[in-house]
Amino acid sequence: MLFLIPAYLSEESPIEYFAPAIKEYIQKTNYFFVENEKTSRKVIKFFCPEKKQSDLKLFLLDKYSETVDLKEAQKLMKDGQDFGLLSEAGLPCIADPGNLMVKWCHENSIKVIPINGPSSIILALISSGFNGQEFTFHGYLPIDKGEKKQKIQFLENQVQKTGYSQIFMETPYRNNQLLEDLIKFLNPNTKLCIAANINHPTEEFIKTLKISEWKNKKPELHKIPAVFVLGN
Amino acid sequence: MLFLIPAYLSEESPIEYFAPAIKEYIQKTNYFFVENEKTSRKVIKFFCPEKKQSDLKLFLLDKYSETVDLKEAQKLMKDGQDFGLLSEAGLPCIADPGNLMVKWCHENSIKVIPINGPSSIILALISSGFNGQEFTFHGYLPIDKGEKKQKIQFLENQVQKTGYSQIFMETPYRNNQLLEDLIKFLNPNTKLCIAANINHPTEEFIKTLKISEWKNKKPELHKIPAVFVLGN
Repeated sequence: MLFLIPAYLSEESPIEYFAPAIKEYIQKTNYFFVENEKTSRKVIKFFCPEKKQSDLKLFLLDKYSETVDLKEAQKLMKDGQDFGLLSEAGLPCIADPGNLMVKWCHENSIKVIPINGPSSIILALISSGFNGQEFTFHGYLPIDKGEKKQKIQFLENQVQKTGYSQIFMETPYRNNQLLEDLIKFLNPNTKLCIAANINHPTEEFIKTLKISEWKNKKPELHKIPAVFVLGN
Repeated sequence: MLFLIPAYLSEESPIEYFAPAIKEYIQKTNYFFVENEKTSRKVIKFFCPEKKQSDLKLFLLDKYSETVDLKEAQKLMKDGQDFGLLSEAGLPCIADPGNLMVKWCHENSIKVIPINGPSSIILALISSGFNGQEFTFHGYLPIDKGEKKQKIQFLENQVQKTGYSQIFMETPYRNNQLLEDLIKFLNPNTKLCIAANINHPTEEFIKTLKISEWKNKKPELHKIPAVFVLGN
């Protein structure tokens, strides 16, 4: 079996924000697919401090992994070994390459068990006040300036044309620049939700305003994890 | 403040599947917006059995509610009363009209606090093995046969053209018919994930197969809550 194990969105999140089942599933195995060894050890320690770190068998699964690199783990799984799959933040397989292993499990009739946990995308959406019946998540916006501008205007157009909420992200150290771009390229009446520091017990910031309003009260978003939503 | 409070996806879900914070937030107030009084009382009892049901003040927020109907609650919120917002299943404001109140809160500078809980849509997506960087949720498919066929083929086309995973649902008593339609209208090589009974401790069913494979092993989905995902 493959357990899809959530991580925290913020290192400050209290343990009460998480289902006890997360700990129970971490206890079931020492074998994990991880995107980054150091942060994953921290996540495992957070949920399960009594687990012996030296017993852990971690298999790197990042954007450079090909299914073929993971042969040893796959052999173990075929022999009945259960694995956990951990992401850097929130639920695995969203904006990370975890889905490669999930796909392999389906192709090999190995059961996949998702464990409840926080997803910043969906928490941002429900907190935005926008259409939650129909929405699109676009992941990270393009880095190239021209492409980014085009994408931002495409998203605004999609909201107007289809009514679907449009969710996207940026690498946190570029968040302030993204907000500048949104203010520059979007219609002043377009509504934007910024959901930053989700699940932070004291510094969570979630607000929906028109672009013309954001212009006059730009929050400090540098290096702060944030999700952006356009909608109506 | 408005607390966005998750409900269970399955009545059989054990309490360990849920963050203790859900109970803590339910304890903070007796005022709730609910889609259905009876089921919401059950959800409150599940998380917080010691709460006195006779103390609860429930305000109906369903698809017939207009913001104007909720004036009494809005006056209370403006005076500082905290409210919870509960959905029928999973997170509020997705495939339910809860976003009306969230929108009003943003317009009136009232803080919105999302509480972590299960979302069947996102759990289905991460369990599918499909692209989790880019995806669209379409809510319920159209009831009209012609429109439904057109939509199904549009979704397949979107996967091929854009690579975005396509997520949708059906009223549970029409799930078997939907699967028939998917088999009839989609290419045999198209991949479909069916995620049924998510969070059910024993009857959870999550599988990704090609349409040609589903044809030969149709699961019984009648009245079983399910999420469907197309992707690659």
